[in-house]
Order: sequence, then structure tokens, then C-alpha cells
Amino acid sequence: MIETPYLLFLGDAPDQLAAKVAQGIKDWRPEYALGQFRMEGCKADMGLPDMDLKAAKAAGAKTLVIGVANRGGVISPAWKKVLVAALEEGFDLASGLHNLLRDEADLAAVAEACGRQLHDVRVPSVDYPIATGVKRTGKRCLAVGTDCSVGKMYTALAMDKEMKARGEKSSFRATGQTGILITGDGVPLDAVVADFMAGSIEYLTPDNDEDHWDMIEGQGSLFHVSYSGVTMALIHGGQPDALILCHEPTRDHMRGLPDYDVPTLQALRDTALPLARWANPACEVVGISVNTQHLSEEDARTYIAKVEAEMGLPTVDPFRDGAGRLVDALVGKHNALAAQ
Amino acid sequence: MIETPYLLFLGDAPDQLAAKVAQGIKDWRPEYALGQFRMEGCKADMGLPDMDLKAAKAAGAKTLVIGVANRGGVISPAWKKVLVAALEEGFDLASGLHNLLRDEADLAAVAEACGRQLHDVRVPSVDYPIATGVKRTGKRCLAVGTDCSVGKMYTALAMDKEMKARGEKSSFRATGQTGILITGDGVPLDAVVADFMAGSIEYLTPDNDEDHWDMIEGQGSLFHVSYSGVTMALIHGGQPDALILCHEPTRDHMRGLPDYDVPTLQALRDTALPLARWANPACEVVGISVNTQHLSEEDARTYIAKVEAEMGLPTVDPFRDGAGRLVDALVGKHNALAAQ
Repeated sequence: MIETPYLLFLGDAPDQLAAKVAQGIKDWRPEYALGQFRMEGCKADMGLPDMDLKAAKAAGAKTLVIGVANRGGVISPAWKKVLVAALEEGFDLASGLHNLLRDEADLAAVAEACGRQLHDVRVPSVDYPIATGVKRTGKRCLAVGTDCSVGKMYTALAMDKEMKARGEKSSFRATGQTGILITGDGVPLDAVVADFMAGSIEYLTPDNDEDHWDMIEGQGSLFHVSYSGVTMALIHGGQPDALILCHEPTRDHMRGLPDYDVPTLQALRDTALPLARWANPACEVVGISVNTQHLSEEDARTYIAKVEAEMGLPTVDPFRDGAGRLVDALVGKHNALAAQ
Repeated sequence: MIETPYLLFLGDAPDQLAAKVAQGIKDWRPEYALGQFRMEGCKADMGLPDMDLKAAKAAGAKTLVIGVANRGGVISPAWKKVLVAALEEGFDLASGLHNLLRDEADLAAVAEACGRQLHDVRVPSVDYPIATGVKRTGKRCLAVGTDCSVGKMYTALAMDKEMKARGEKSSFRATGQTGILITGDGVPLDAVVADFMAGSIEYLTPDNDEDHWDMIEGQGSLFHVSYSGVTMALIHGGQPDALILCHEPTRDHMRGLPDYDVPTLQALRDTALPLARWANPACEVVGISVNTQHLSEEDARTYIAKVEAEMGLPTVDPFRDGAGRLVDALVGKHNALAAQ
């Protein structure tokens, strides 16, 4: 659990895109984003107050989050002076980068001396159990995709935000580095040892109130041969009550796999739902989320309407439309079940 | 890669079952099993020549394999004197136990001083790649089960043995600790990090001659919610040409999961085959292996005949019947494809 609120470290980001972790925190957890720390030459700007370490500390910030990725995703030597000073100032550090804070001898030594925490969210910090498959109380919704990187995290975050806006009980459950940094907690599923994958998701989504929904961030795709095992563990470990199908309609092939076509939404539904029902017979597909960022507004409207007609399910691009109709479907399903 | 041949260490095994790793090596790779080392009070006997370390060394043994598991699966203090002496005598050590040889300070120090290897097959020794999904040359057969521990390793080993007896090209590909110790090589899949599971299986079953078959040891089950992700990675990483369905007909529920029924062989076929065809459209289910150890000879005959009639596929218990009919089906399929 990473202590909040955060000072977002943008470093020497060459452009706005390099600071997408900081952007995610600012978009989805603005209450955590107290300020930004920019080094000379930084080209990213979250529109937050620029703060030095002392000012951020005085304002109550607890953790300096590395919100920027440089080429190669490693800790840049240029950042070291700031990171060391932050530890000395009393901040914890959090990072999702490939090379670990704890493996940097200077950071490890200073953190130890100052009694501060180094959070490397790329590696698990918990000994997860083997999954038991025992039915848990509360409700769970899982985003599954026709491919990787089609908007599963965005969809789950948007649904969580909409649920909270309505006063419904909801928790976004992060399963990847960015999601963990955004929310301060979660399971870095791609780094969990095979035998414990499903168990880590059971651990992440424990018993809860009957009207509470976990919005579980999906990973990979059942149709992405590099990562399908990870997706499978989410489906059985998450024992979802509801699936949201996620799709990006302009791909020529699966991400990183030029020999593999992207499956249809029908194929995704027909594959994922029977597998999910093995762990939770009540599971249903309740809606579809389409990432239309590469389509014009008109083409997006046409495409979404066509999918909705073909699949007979509420279909939205949560970025353009919000997640209201997906949440309607989810809550409608819950009420229908509760009325039985 | 563990150097062969072996001296099998049976230690102070309380009974024959405790030495099942040694039994597996003796049954499936008798050419590796040069002799056995038994301590006082050992109740297991592989029927191999009893050898002390010097005699085994003189006979050409390279590795002392811990072929016994005590309660808890840990390295017993009572064994230490022998293990240290073996290193000093010039043996490597190999173990599939939970606590690692390398974590025992005395063994690590002596191995270092003597220039010997400690093989802990429970943990990966390779940095596996991310799977690419690129179609590989050669043929692959994967055993998939309705449940865990239904005879998948036995089936693959029996098919490999039959193939070799016929002069066909075949390699058993181990994916678990016992299989790795039996053959001296393989991937401990349950200990591989999630992102690299499918890649580890691609690594294990590389390009090969067009008429060479990899007999891949299965793990878990698509219907076992604790481990289904591991099975999924085998199906997509292995890109099998042939599946063998494995089943144990007397279970009340899935192993370790009292709330879950065992699926039917039809459900296994209908779930596994479409998933396998995503990575290899030519994949077919070619036969069924039933573990009838808990049935009488007559009940086993009746059950196997019933399954064969219902499923329309060659069905055997390889322990009772050998794997000849499964291999007939496999080679028949290959010849039919080659003739096209």
C-alpha cells in the first residue's frame, strides 16, 4: 500500500506522452495528485502546482511517484539527486520502471538510513496463496479484450468512477503497474509466479458487501498467445459476475503477433463466458467497450451502433461517451438478481 | 541440463512410495539409473545395485539425484553427510524438493569449493523469452486433463517410449519437477513468472524435423481454477498438433476443490480444441488416456469401451494397455497430413 497523496515526479520528460503514469494519476485520482516536480528541460505538464520537495512536504505529500518513463523504462542517472533528496526529506518513493529502486545501491542505502519505503510496483510484495475457488461474497466485473492494450484499464477505471459518482459501492482493482501507481495498491499480475496467479486475484478481490462491485483491470487476452494464461487466471481467480468485452477496431493483427488475426467480439464472448461460468455460473456479458481513438467521430458513431445492433448489448466508447450505460447494465443486472 | 547417468539417493525413505522420483527414473530412463544409495533404515528398493559413492563414481555416475521426498518435501538433516561427501567425491546434486540445495549454506560452500553443480529443478534456471507465437517446424502432442494428477506425465512418457521403440523421432518434454529429474531437462512451469509461461514452452519445444514429435507433459487443467492459466500457457505456447485427453473416472470433485465437479471428456474436448486451434489450426484430438488404477480389470475394460464408443476416439489406459493405440493415432494423423 503506497501512502497518499503524491508529488508527481515528471523528471526530464521529453514530451507529454512520456509522463503517462502521472497523467493517469491526475485523471483518475486527482485527489492524490498534490503537485508536480519538473526538472530543467521537462516538456510535460500536468497543469498541477509546481512544487519543490520542501513545499510538497509542507503541503502533506507522502510519496514521490515516478510518473515518467524514459527510453528503456529505467531509472535515469539524471534523476538520482532528486530521488535521494526526496528520501532525505521524508518521502517514500514509488516506481513501475523495469529496473528497481531497491537495486540502486544509493537509493537503498539512503532509504534504509532515513526509514523510508521504496515501492517497486513491478514486482509482487506479497506471498500470494494458491487459489481455492471458494465462492466469495460481493460482486465482481472483469474487462476482457479481443487483444492487449485495447482499453481494459480505462474501461474499469471509468466504470469505477461512474459507480462512485452515483454513490454505489465500487473498488477499482489494479492488476498492472500503471493501475497500481494510480490507486496505490494492486497485484502486478504479469510478475506473479504461475502457480499463484489465480490466488493473487482471489487475494485482490476478497469477500465484500453484497452490493459492492470490484472493477477488475484485465490483462492480455485469451486470444493473445503470449499472455493468454494470465487472462485465464484472471477469469478463474476473479470469478466475475459480469464481463465487459473490450475491442479496438482498427488493428490489422494482434499486438506484437503479425501472424495472428484479431478475433471477433462474438468469438471473445463465446470463449470467455463459458470459461467464466465454470467459476461463477451466474456470470453474464453485460456490455461492450470500444476504443475508437483512431476513428473519426462519425465513423465511431457508426461502428458503435453496428456493434450494439449485432451483439445486442450496450456498447460505448467510455472516452467519448462515459461509462454510464455500462454501469446501468451492471446495476440493472445486480438489481434483477437481488429481486429473484 | 543435468549430467547423466545417475546414482539414485533413496536416503531413509520410510516406504516405496516416498521414493517415487527414483521409481520414475528407473521406470522411464533405466539407462540413467546406474545404482541406488540407501541409508540405514531405508525401506525403499528400486532393485538396482546398491553402491557407495566411490563405487558409483568408478562406474561412471555423474549426478546424485535425490529420489526421495520426506514429510514436507524438505532436505533432511540426516542426508547432509552423504550429500556433502558426494560433492567432495565429484558428483553434482539434483533435487526437486521445496527447499533448495543452493540455500543450504554447507552444500553451497562445498559445491563452490569442489566446482560442482547444484540443480534445483523446482526453480527455473533460464531467462525465458516472451512467446512470439511463430509457427515452428516439427510436431507436438500435448496431454490435457479433466483435472490435475490424472496421468498426463505418465501418458506422455508412455507415448514417447512407444515412439522410440518403433524407431520414430520423439522427445518427452518435461514441464514439472519429476519429469525434469527423470529426463535431466525441462521447464518447471509452475515456478515460471506469468509473462514468460508461454515463452518457456516455446523455448522447450523448438523447431525440429518435420517427422519429430515433442511429447509435452501437461500441467493442471483448464477446469482447475487454481492452475488453469498454467494449462492455457501450455496450449498456446506448445501450439500442439495433437491433444490427448486424460481422465480419472472415480473422482467426486476436482482435486483440492470440493466445490467443483470434474468436467466430462466432451467438455474438455470442446474447450481445449478451439483454444489450441487458435495457435495451430491443424490441431486435433487424437486419443484418450484413462487412469483406471482405482477400477477392477473388468470395470476398467467396460469403462474404456464405453468412452471409446461415446467419443469415437482410441481410448486406452497406458498402464494396462501400453500407448500403442495412441501412437498409432498420432502417426496415422501425421502420415495423413504428409500425404495431402
